[in-house]
Amino acid sequence: MQRYASCPLGLRSHVLQVGVRHPRHPGFWKMLAVATCVALLGCLQAQKLQGHVSVILLGATGDLARKYLWQGLFQLYLDEAGKGHSFSFHGAALTATKQGQEFMAKVLESLSCPEDVAPSRCAELKDQFRRLSQYRQLKTSEDYVALSEGVEALVRQEGRREAGRLFYFSVPPFAYADIARNINSSCRPGPGAWLRVVLEKPFGHDHLSAQQLATELGSFFQEEEMYRVDHYLGKQAVAQILPFRDQNRKALDGLWNRHHVERVEIVMKETVDAEGRTSFYEEYGVIRDVLQNHLTEVLTLVAMELPYNASSAEAVLQHKLQAFRALRGLRRASAVLGQYRAYGTQVRRELHKPDSFHSLTPTFAGILVHMDNLRWEGVPFILMSGKALDERVGYVRILFKNRAFCAQSEKDWVTAQSPCLPQQIIFYIGHGELGTPAVLVSRSLFKPTLPSRSWKEVEGRPGLRLFGRPLSDYYAYSPVRERDAYSILISHIFHGRKDSFVTTENLLASWVFWTPLLDSLAREVPRLYPGGAENGHLLDFEFAGGQLAFCQQQVEQLVLGPGSAPMPSDFQVLRATYRESPLVTAWPEELIAKLASDIEATAVQAVRRFGQFHLALSGGSSPIVLFQQLATGHYGFPWAHTHLWLVDERCVPLWDPESNFQGLQTHLLQHVRVPYYNVHPMPVHLHQRLCAEQDRGAQAYAEQISALVTNSSFDLVLLGMGPDGHTASLFPQSPAGLDGEQLVVLTESPSKPYHRMSLSLPLINRARKVVVLVMGRLKRDITMLVSRVGHEPKKWPISGVLPGSGQLVWYMDYEAFLG
Amino acid sequence: MQRYASCPLGLRSHVLQVGVRHPRHPGFWKMLAVATCVALLGCLQAQKLQGHVSVILLGATGDLARKYLWQGLFQLYLDEAGKGHSFSFHGAALTATKQGQEFMAKVLESLSCPEDVAPSRCAELKDQFRRLSQYRQLKTSEDYVALSEGVEALVRQEGRREAGRLFYFSVPPFAYADIARNINSSCRPGPGAWLRVVLEKPFGHDHLSAQQLATELGSFFQEEEMYRVDHYLGKQAVAQILPFRDQNRKALDGLWNRHHVERVEIVMKETVDAEGRTSFYEEYGVIRDVLQNHLTEVLTLVAMELPYNASSAEAVLQHKLQAFRALRGLRRASAVLGQYRAYGTQVRRELHKPDSFHSLTPTFAGILVHMDNLRWEGVPFILMSGKALDERVGYVRILFKNRAFCAQSEKDWVTAQSPCLPQQIIFYIGHGELGTPAVLVSRSLFKPTLPSRSWKEVEGRPGLRLFGRPLSDYYAYSPVRERDAYSILISHIFHGRKDSFVTTENLLASWVFWTPLLDSLAREVPRLYPGGAENGHLLDFEFAGGQLAFCQQQVEQLVLGPGSAPMPSDFQVLRATYRESPLVTAWPEELIAKLASDIEATAVQAVRRFGQFHLALSGGSSPIVLFQQLATGHYGFPWAHTHLWLVDERCVPLWDPESNFQGLQTHLLQHVRVPYYNVHPMPVHLHQRLCAEQDRGAQAYAEQISALVTNSSFDLVLLGMGPDGHTASLFPQSPAGLDGEQLVVLTESPSKPYHRMSLSLPLINRARKVVVLVMGRLKRDITMLVSRVGHEPKKWPISGVLPGSGQLVWYMDYEAFLG
Repeated sequence: MQRYASCPLGLRSHVLQVGVRHPRHPGFWKMLAVATCVALLGCLQAQKLQGHVSVILLGATGDLARKYLWQGLFQLYLDEAGKGHSFSFHGAALTATKQGQEFMAKVLESLSCPEDVAPSRCAELKDQFRRLSQYRQLKTSEDYVALSEGVEALVRQEGRREAGRLFYFSVPPFAYADIARNINSSCRPGPGAWLRVVLEKPFGHDHLSAQQLATELGSFFQEEEMYRVDHYLGKQAVAQILPFRDQNRKALDGLWNRHHVERVEIVMKETVDAEGRTSFYEEYGVIRDVLQNHLTEVLTLVAMELPYNASSAEAVLQHKLQAFRALRGLRRASAVLGQYRAYGTQVRRELHKPDSFHSLTPTFAGILVHMDNLRWEGVPFILMSGKALDERVGYVRILFKNRAFCAQSEKDWVTAQSPCLPQQIIFYIGHGELGTPAVLVSRSLFKPTLPSRSWKEVEGRPGLRLFGRPLSDYYAYSPVRERDAYSILISHIFHGRKDSFVTTENLLASWVFWTPLLDSLAREVPRLYPGGAENGHLLDFEFAGGQLAFCQQQVEQLVLGPGSAPMPSDFQVLRATYRESPLVTAWPEELIAKLASDIEATAVQAVRRFGQFHLALSGGSSPIVLFQQLATGHYGFPWAHTHLWLVDERCVPLWDPESNFQGLQTHLLQHVRVPYYNVHPMPVHLHQRLCAEQDRGAQAYAEQISALVTNSSFDLVLLGMGPDGHTASLFPQSPAGLDGEQLVVLTESPSKPYHRMSLSLPLINRARKVVVLVMGRLKRDITMLVSRVGHEPKKWPISGVLPGSGQLVWYMDYEAFLG
Repeated sequence: MQRYASCPLGLRSHVLQVGVRHPRHPGFWKMLAVATCVALLGCLQAQKLQGHVSVILLGATGDLARKYLWQGLFQLYLDEAGKGHSFSFHGAALTATKQGQEFMAKVLESLSCPEDVAPSRCAELKDQFRRLSQYRQLKTSEDYVALSEGVEALVRQEGRREAGRLFYFSVPPFAYADIARNINSSCRPGPGAWLRVVLEKPFGHDHLSAQQLATELGSFFQEEEMYRVDHYLGKQAVAQILPFRDQNRKALDGLWNRHHVERVEIVMKETVDAEGRTSFYEEYGVIRDVLQNHLTEVLTLVAMELPYNASSAEAVLQHKLQAFRALRGLRRASAVLGQYRAYGTQVRRELHKPDSFHSLTPTFAGILVHMDNLRWEGVPFILMSGKALDERVGYVRILFKNRAFCAQSEKDWVTAQSPCLPQQIIFYIGHGELGTPAVLVSRSLFKPTLPSRSWKEVEGRPGLRLFGRPLSDYYAYSPVRERDAYSILISHIFHGRKDSFVTTENLLASWVFWTPLLDSLAREVPRLYPGGAENGHLLDFEFAGGQLAFCQQQVEQLVLGPGSAPMPSDFQVLRATYRESPLVTAWPEELIAKLASDIEATAVQAVRRFGQFHLALSGGSSPIVLFQQLATGHYGFPWAHTHLWLVDERCVPLWDPESNFQGLQTHLLQHVRVPYYNVHPMPVHLHQRLCAEQDRGAQAYAEQISALVTNSSFDLVLLGMGPDGHTASLFPQSPAGLDGEQLVVLTESPSKPYHRMSLSLPLINRARKVVVLVMGRLKRDITMLVSRVGHEPKKWPISGVLPGSGQLVWYMDYEAFLG
């Protein structure tokens, strides 16, 4: 091997790899010969001088630098030095020169070579690297000028052109601006050479702060100059997700979608807790620390549409952005939060807080994510991470739906043949019982293709079970050589592979996604857990209807409130009268449940008697809960025979988010099967105009009603009541629709959008049944007032609601009714 | 115990049961005392004389009678005789009196008493029963008259009134009519007494024959007089389904629906084959033998809405009928069929068929059933039965969706607490590894309530696994006393519990469901299987998109065809030209796949450029496959930005099955998310009239197009071509729409419905792209012809299709193009 001594190291190690791994392989000697030729050719090419690359590591004396970055830079040198570029490495920090040099000397001494490099050779290589590396204090702007001049001098001295400068920011975010300004003003390389700046998280605390940081950096650097590191993207199993999807396109094409995927789990579990780091942790918590970045990045790699050319960084980044756009917004109910029991004490101790201080920072979170696109609609993506759990492990698990029925008794199933055993693909990020990164594919699914140069089959481990099945159930591959994420990412930075990094757009998209949830959870009390195996089933959670909840009832309160408040279910639905009509009053949840049941009963009865059910619905926010209840809880509802009419509409196009029809569409129509022609939106938008008198939309709607609804008498009209006593879109200030012959009228609202279309009072009063739903504290005053007034529709249109021969029922929650 | 000797036997056995089962129970003596009192009370009530019941078993010397029915009647006597009625049992058959008497004597001698009756007491009881039983030959109408007179004499002699007559038809169906006529004319009991006739399957061979049989029987008997036996309804686990649902309403209410149920499996596996019974089997096959009756009955019990009063027979029957109505029609692809390998030989031998005879009768079937209602939509119901399988077992398994995520490593899961273990409810009908009927509920689901008098907890059976989990994972109950289905059903007949029987309506509903499938499968070649455990994974099947298929490729052909025909995938998509425009031609499947991809590409491009995609679609049958392909295979299709227009429409209401819009709705719209306001049906139905000139529907559509589609130039128009050269609804016989200014026209079709609305040729030719899809052999001639003609739209409207500045592409399958 001695004759390769002067060869580029990357090639040398490649030769070793090919040769040594398969000594008994029949083609061993032939391969070695070929490899040798390739290596020689590489040596010749290496003669072609390329430019000089200088790497400046800012924060060179910090923890991250010591643990990972210097090793990553050394690896970069080993991989690339032989390929024509020359290198210089500049450790920089605020530390005084002497201490800095001493620190660096120690770090460089501790560097290690790949396994297959002999110790003597390793010492040689380390020595070469050391000679190319130097420490310098970077404090003032003069220091930066000096750095730049130093690099230029070096380049001149080597007689090369400058290829590029790589600045690695391993410093706290507050230092970014200053450094960035200095680099931009004094340290940019000359024309023709690239500048790359590498940034480490945190990238902000929420959308606003991330945006500010991005704007600031954007004033110094071009987007293409910035490399934001999420070290998860350098994890071998994560970095393999897209290549795997690409290389197994044929097998995955039909599988990678909502028809086949049962769920996706993206998990990072830790056994350690936050002790000693609470000052950082208290500010961030598990969602900002792990989910917003690492798990979200993984999520997009799994969920994005696979670009035709999966190795095009631009296409990958574009498709990732699209995946962000398809994310359904998170709600408070999308999350379950936990905090290990010792955390509070640790925080109080480390941050010198009084005993009365109770941190709400979550150290455990489970999040349910949905994608609103055709590929993933309905597939739950479960993101979970936590500290002080029972094991350290990270994985992405894609579990496929079991669509098979096995005719044979299960004791005779053959693993690789049985379609009834669980079918899953797992990107095992690391640690856990397997102890190595891996890609696992159930044998009954398909035999995957992985690059055989870098991934090898995992050896059998009898007794080891993963995800419910023995290891032998899987085609299992692990990396031929385990590599640290940073060394991979540093190589990608060098090669300009931007798709392994977080662009500004992606970063902001992620914050746009997470910030509303973080805001809504700010005062949420996390569930306490003991930590480790003792957690038992305490943190198990489940999802239904887009909501997450712990499976077990809360057993312990983090902060004890002032006695337990009465629960809604402690109250019965009350029956009384209001304005001499029946009144149903209850807590909101019971009220809506009762109303939904009553509507269903009315519908069933109408369909039984008349073959159809004509339901006129109001817009606004209260009915939304009702719609959701009807959509998910009422299996017997005769939707196929129901006609849906609007009580009123805003004069906006139907697709406008302000449109009442939109609410109906989003919360009801897309969940139930009402035939297209039974849906009757108000014609507020005709001839490209909104509610123009001459388009006669109101008349057209009236005609439609007359034609389809017997006697123009709806089976049920659902109304609301405004704080000014308006109902439908009949306002006190506007005379239209309170009496007269017109069935449908154009009216004016005191608030935007001003123009409305509404059923008239006379039409409403022809209904067989009118229901008025009133909810919330804000309605308290008008509820009181209207209870006392007579028939004065001009002042309070709601007081004019009194069906001629039909029934009127009021549904009010306790807050509206009792205040 | 001697003092109970004169007591009714049913009560006595009840006392024994309560007493003997739990001798160590602390309340044993107290219970015995209570039971004694109850028994005494029963004795007193029994003194009240009730009427006389005569049971006439027709076919008394047959197999079924010998194996089950006499025993069932004896049980009836044991249960009921003490309660006031008097009984007489009349064995009847065509067999001569002497032989019949001898046969009966033998059978009656072999009857057995419940376990808890002492042998001496048993002999006594059998003797009593024997004295009440007699054989008589029933052949001529005089015989029936004599029977009736005999019964009347007996009643007079006892000094009672007649309560009722029960005729049990254990005879082949061809004998039904004659017997029924005789009973009706000569054997009806007098006023005030009931007549019940009990019928055994087969109840026809398909819908028509079942209807004929039902009509015939209906001419002799009232519906309420007929009891059609499906003995599965007497199986204890099956009979428990509704009571279980009723008694566990609270726990099941939220679970028993599509949100929670993953799948339902209804299975009856046999190890025996059809040897010796092929003359019957060859005519029926597994679907008629097991699925149409037993498994369908079970299906309805699981799927039906639970009546408020689950013990109301009327309500149950009504709800069962509703369940039938919700069944989605079966298609050929809803089934997989198999035949055990020895069957062919058995049939040839037993039925004296030549070697060249190959039976297509299935001995194995898997069927995928869907219910089109809100409760069950999307939930697969899998029905499976077969002979010569690896085990004998019957069960209904309701598997629930796993919606939980367990934070702890699975090795620490606790069965009764872990929400991540499979959750299922199983009605174990019998046999199998458990060897007894049972109801199993996963412990993590809920603790069920079962009637403790008749169901007891199953004792632990270490090592026994059922449905993937150890028995200990379940709350498991089995009957305190195993009872034969017939004895249960005979008791139900006596008590008039009609809900345990198959009404005429239910029967016909079942045949309506099964007959089209049976017809479409008539020439289907079943997969051969070796039988027993050797079947391996050969019969495993899977479902997707409403279709079933075996998981493994076909390995053996039942009947070898004349060399294997080329498969569609053996051919490439050909590209050529037709009428000087590009032509794509392929087998149908590839053609549709290509067209769907091309449309998607056009859509994506249009949305990218213009923000929206205007697609005009034709009606007819060819596009349906295309719609399905688009709906299920194209995740990237920008539906949210697509406007759907109609190329033409029939002048029928939109909800008419003939409407083109209906096809679009059924096959495309309900599967994708096109916003309501982007869907543009043709306004053929205005002011309650169809295509009236004065309603100006065509003009309105034209205006809508002008308003929304830039330059009235659709992005893509999909056309078909009729055998007469028509396209859209532009016909050779009708001049409208071929030229001129009008964008949308009313036209006349030579076939029904005559009135149509259509885009005009000039409008079509303004499109950016026009695609003509032509499929099937019937199009061969017109394809040939049109290939040769010039621009003659008046003769062949299709020849006028030539977009001014757009592109025209023809898509033809090989049959249309090559004939």
